[in-house]
Amino acid sequence: MTFIEKIRRAWRLNHSLLCVGLDPDKEKLPACLDKAKGNASLFDFNQQIIDQTAAHCCSFKLQFAYFAAYGAEKELQQSIAYIKQSYPDHLVILDAKRGDIGETAKMYAREAFQRYGTDAVTVNPYMGGDTLAPFLAYPDKGVIVLCRTSNEGSAQFQSLLTDKLPLAHRVAEAAVGWNYNENIMLVVGATYPAELKTIRQLVGQMPLLVPGVGAQGGSLIEVMKNGLDENQTGLLINSSRGIIYASSGADFALAAGLEAKKLNDEMNAVRDTL
Amino acid sequence: MTFIEKIRRAWRLNHSLLCVGLDPDKEKLPACLDKAKGNASLFDFNQQIIDQTAAHCCSFKLQFAYFAAYGAEKELQQSIAYIKQSYPDHLVILDAKRGDIGETAKMYAREAFQRYGTDAVTVNPYMGGDTLAPFLAYPDKGVIVLCRTSNEGSAQFQSLLTDKLPLAHRVAEAAVGWNYNENIMLVVGATYPAELKTIRQLVGQMPLLVPGVGAQGGSLIEVMKNGLDENQTGLLINSSRGIIYASSGADFALAAGLEAKKLNDEMNAVRDTL
Repeated sequence: MTFIEKIRRAWRLNHSLLCVGLDPDKEKLPACLDKAKGNASLFDFNQQIIDQTAAHCCSFKLQFAYFAAYGAEKELQQSIAYIKQSYPDHLVILDAKRGDIGETAKMYAREAFQRYGTDAVTVNPYMGGDTLAPFLAYPDKGVIVLCRTSNEGSAQFQSLLTDKLPLAHRVAEAAVGWNYNENIMLVVGATYPAELKTIRQLVGQMPLLVPGVGAQGGSLIEVMKNGLDENQTGLLINSSRGIIYASSGADFALAAGLEAKKLNDEMNAVRDTL
Repeated sequence: MTFIEKIRRAWRLNHSLLCVGLDPDKEKLPACLDKAKGNASLFDFNQQIIDQTAAHCCSFKLQFAYFAAYGAEKELQQSIAYIKQSYPDHLVILDAKRGDIGETAKMYAREAFQRYGTDAVTVNPYMGGDTLAPFLAYPDKGVIVLCRTSNEGSAQFQSLLTDKLPLAHRVAEAAVGWNYNENIMLVVGATYPAELKTIRQLVGQMPLLVPGVGAQGGSLIEVMKNGLDENQTGLLINSSRGIIYASSGADFALAAGLEAKKLNDEMNAVRDTL
C-alpha cells in the first residue's frame, strides 16, 4: 500500500483526523507509575495512553527527543511495535526532524523505516531537496517536511520574503515538485491559520500535519476551516501535551482517552458543519 | 572552561585545524574487522581510527545517523567516552543536526551534552532562534548552526535572496546576535569558497566548521584563504570519508593516520604562507 493510500485508509477506518503525540517526559510521568522501573516506565505510560486513545485517533506521533535524552531507544521501539501490532489501521510517525546530506540521509531513512518500522518521519528542508530524496524513494512511507512550524519564532526565517513569497511558501511549492510518489506531507502550525489557508491553496490535496492545538493555543475551528481539503480530510491534527498530561493522577490514561475523544468529537462536529 | 576557550585550546595544543569525521558505515567496514561482533565492530573501527589520527587533528565529529541506523547508541557513547578519556585536548562534536520547538530542544540538548557528553552539537536554524536557545544556554558547549551546507542542492533555499541577502547570510547575521555566550559556530561547506569569504566577513572571529574537503571535492587552499580568521585559526576543517576509508585493507587505521597527517601538514603549510 502506498503512503497516500495508508493515510486515507487511516482517516476513513478511524473516522478521525486526530494524531496523538507521545512526548513522554520522564520528569512529568504520573506518580502512580513505578518510576523505579526507569526507562521501562516510559513504555508503560505510552502503552496505557495508546490503549485509551486509539479509538479516537488515526495516528500516533512519537517525539524522538524524549527517548533520546534518556537512552530509551528500546522503549521507543517497543511503543512503535505495540501500536503496529495492536492498532494496524493507525499511522505511526517518528518525529525526529531529520536533515542531512544524501549519504547520511540514507542512514536516517533506514533508521526510521527499517529499524523502527514507522510509517512516516518528519524532515527539515533547509539543506535542499537533494537531501530529502533518500526518504522520498520509499513510496510506502511518508516524508513530513517542516514548512511553517508552530513555535513563536518560526517567522524569523520561514516568513522572510524571497521575491515576494515567504520562504515557507517556497518550501511548499518545492514540495509539490518532490511529490512524485505522493508521499509528502507538510508541517503547518495551528498557531498560524492564515498560513494554513495559503499553503492549502499551494499544495492542493497534499496532507498537512498540524501541531499546535491544545497546549500551544491554536484554534481547532480555524485550523479546519483553513486546512481541510475538498474531501473534508487532508489534515492530521496533532495534540501531545494536552492529551497525555490531561491528568497527573492514577486516571491519567482515562483522562487522556476522554481528552482525545473530546477533540475528535469536536473535529468531526466541525467537519459536519463545514 | 567556556566553549570558545576549549576550541582555542584544541587548536593550539594540537597545532591543527583538522576535524576527523567518524561516519562508520557498517557496510563499508574493512574485511579484517570481525564483523560477526555486530555493532561492536563499529567501536573497534572508530577506536583504531581515533588512535592513529589523534596526533594530526584537534577534533572528532561523530555522525549520529551511522549509529542510529543500526541501533548502535552504545558504540556511539563508547567512542565519545574513549576520545574524552584518551585525548582530553580534542573537541568531540555530535553531528545530529537537531532542531525542534523549545520544550523538545531542551531534550536534545540534554541528549548531546549530558547523555553523550559531547563538547558541541550541530543544529538546524530553519525553525528560528527561539528553538536554539536551549542549546545556547550551555556556555561550555558549542552550538554549530547550519548556514551554507556542502551538498549540491544547498542553494535551493540557502541562496534565495531575501531583500538582497541570501538566506544563509541572514542566518549568519542572526547567529552573531545569538552569540552572547560565544559558543556558536557555523557550518559552511568547502564546496562554496566564495560564501566562506562573505560569511567570514559577516561573523568576525566566530569559528566555522567546514565539511566538504576530500570526498566532496572542496579545495583546501581556497578554504583557508577565504575562511581563516585574523589569528590564522577560526576553522575546523572536516574530512570524513577521505580519511576513514583511505584503505579498506588491514592497514586501514594506519592509512587513515597518514591521510590525516597529510591533510594537517598541508593545512599548516598553507597557514605559514598566508
